[in-house]
Amino acid sequence: MYKLVLIRHGESTWNLENRFTGWTDVDLTATGVEQAKQAGRLIKEAGLDFDVAYTSVLKRAVWTLWHCLDQMDRTWLPVVHSWRLNERHYGALQGLNKAETAKQYGDEQVLVWRRSYDTPPPPLESNDPRSERGDIRYAKMNPADIPLTECLKDTVARVLPFWNDSVAPAIKLGKRVVIAAHGNSIRALVKYLDGIGDDEIVGLNIPNGIPLVYELDADLKPIKSYYLGDAEAAAKAAAAVANQGKKA
Amino acid sequence: MYKLVLIRHGESTWNLENRFTGWTDVDLTATGVEQAKQAGRLIKEAGLDFDVAYTSVLKRAVWTLWHCLDQMDRTWLPVVHSWRLNERHYGALQGLNKAETAKQYGDEQVLVWRRSYDTPPPPLESNDPRSERGDIRYAKMNPADIPLTECLKDTVARVLPFWNDSVAPAIKLGKRVVIAAHGNSIRALVKYLDGIGDDEIVGLNIPNGIPLVYELDADLKPIKSYYLGDAEAAAKAAAAVANQGKKA
Repeated sequence: MYKLVLIRHGESTWNLENRFTGWTDVDLTATGVEQAKQAGRLIKEAGLDFDVAYTSVLKRAVWTLWHCLDQMDRTWLPVVHSWRLNERHYGALQGLNKAETAKQYGDEQVLVWRRSYDTPPPPLESNDPRSERGDIRYAKMNPADIPLTECLKDTVARVLPFWNDSVAPAIKLGKRVVIAAHGNSIRALVKYLDGIGDDEIVGLNIPNGIPLVYELDADLKPIKSYYLGDAEAAAKAAAAVANQGKKA
Repeated sequence: MYKLVLIRHGESTWNLENRFTGWTDVDLTATGVEQAKQAGRLIKEAGLDFDVAYTSVLKRAVWTLWHCLDQMDRTWLPVVHSWRLNERHYGALQGLNKAETAKQYGDEQVLVWRRSYDTPPPPLESNDPRSERGDIRYAKMNPADIPLTECLKDTVARVLPFWNDSVAPAIKLGKRVVIAAHGNSIRALVKYLDGIGDDEIVGLNIPNGIPLVYELDADLKPIKSYYLGDAEAAAKAAAAVANQGKKA
């Protein structure tokens, strides 16, 4: 039996400002740093340990991992970065305030963009200064492969190859794995692991900074999964995520 | 022509307490964190960039690197950890106050332990609780290869294989490299690169948290080397290191 730990990054400055973030590379808040440290303490208390860590190329996830590893005295662990673990690209909504966007387009439209499985938000223009096409961290990608927007389906489609080609083989080799990532890249993994349908996954929320443990069988099928720490706190945190797109 | 950047970690808690540290895994102080951030800002201002970073398995070097990379917006860079970049092992002196050790053994004996090229301090007993032999980060090493003490000559002997097998090939492949490490592992590299004699190297001090740039030719022979930022500050910092072992 294998164990896998998933952690959504701690609160970011744009979580706090209630803005659509996507691939925008924003910092953790002081609360986010504390959540990340707490995640590390919970993992250590649970007696979990890792051989390798995976994260995105966005610093809110990287710093979450670093603080977490520091609490575990594991700052020396190998860390693999991949853009495939990035947050869902939020297209032309990146940088906009969620409540203001809801006022402008209506709760319903914003809910479609946030929670529809296959309707992406309006794309960035490729010459939009918010586009990642000039960003050196994506320089080795084919520019045409750098998204200008994504629906969750698109995110799933680019997360799964990384799971299949990198993470799953490592787990099967006996490596104990932690993944520090984002609401939607983790949702993509949860959808795949738990076999959740397209309609159901959009209603599932991942709280910030609370370690999610999967116990997996030899074929990497989940035996069970659970959040570490206070279950009520996890549920409350997930509900807070669900309410971010509301006008009020 | 290649460029290589070496950074000794920022001030650690045991630098501040004037204790022999060696392989003991102590944290940066607030000053050390600020030095690391400043190193990152200096590197960015100098227009330097990296493709890969190397560091030890000790958190004062790792955190120095992380803060530095964060200031450069490069938290996503690949980082390679190796025990071969660790500080010189300080044997039975690890944890002892430098000034008290000087009072007990005399300035001269301490200076020999600190600055002789080939006289190691007294070794740890292998069952000493300070020994690293039960430390999981060294679990893949042959226990007999985990040092119980080292002179600088020993440190040079285990740093150079890492330079030759990992760092030098990466540089020749065109990778831009930064190494965040320790006073003596950096001294080992400087000795090798600059062809410094055994007697001279012991008088050369590496200041905390100031990036040292090497410009190297096609054979990785130094064309020139210089500290970034305020040269006077670097000299002052190096002198402070030299004075740590004095009684007063």
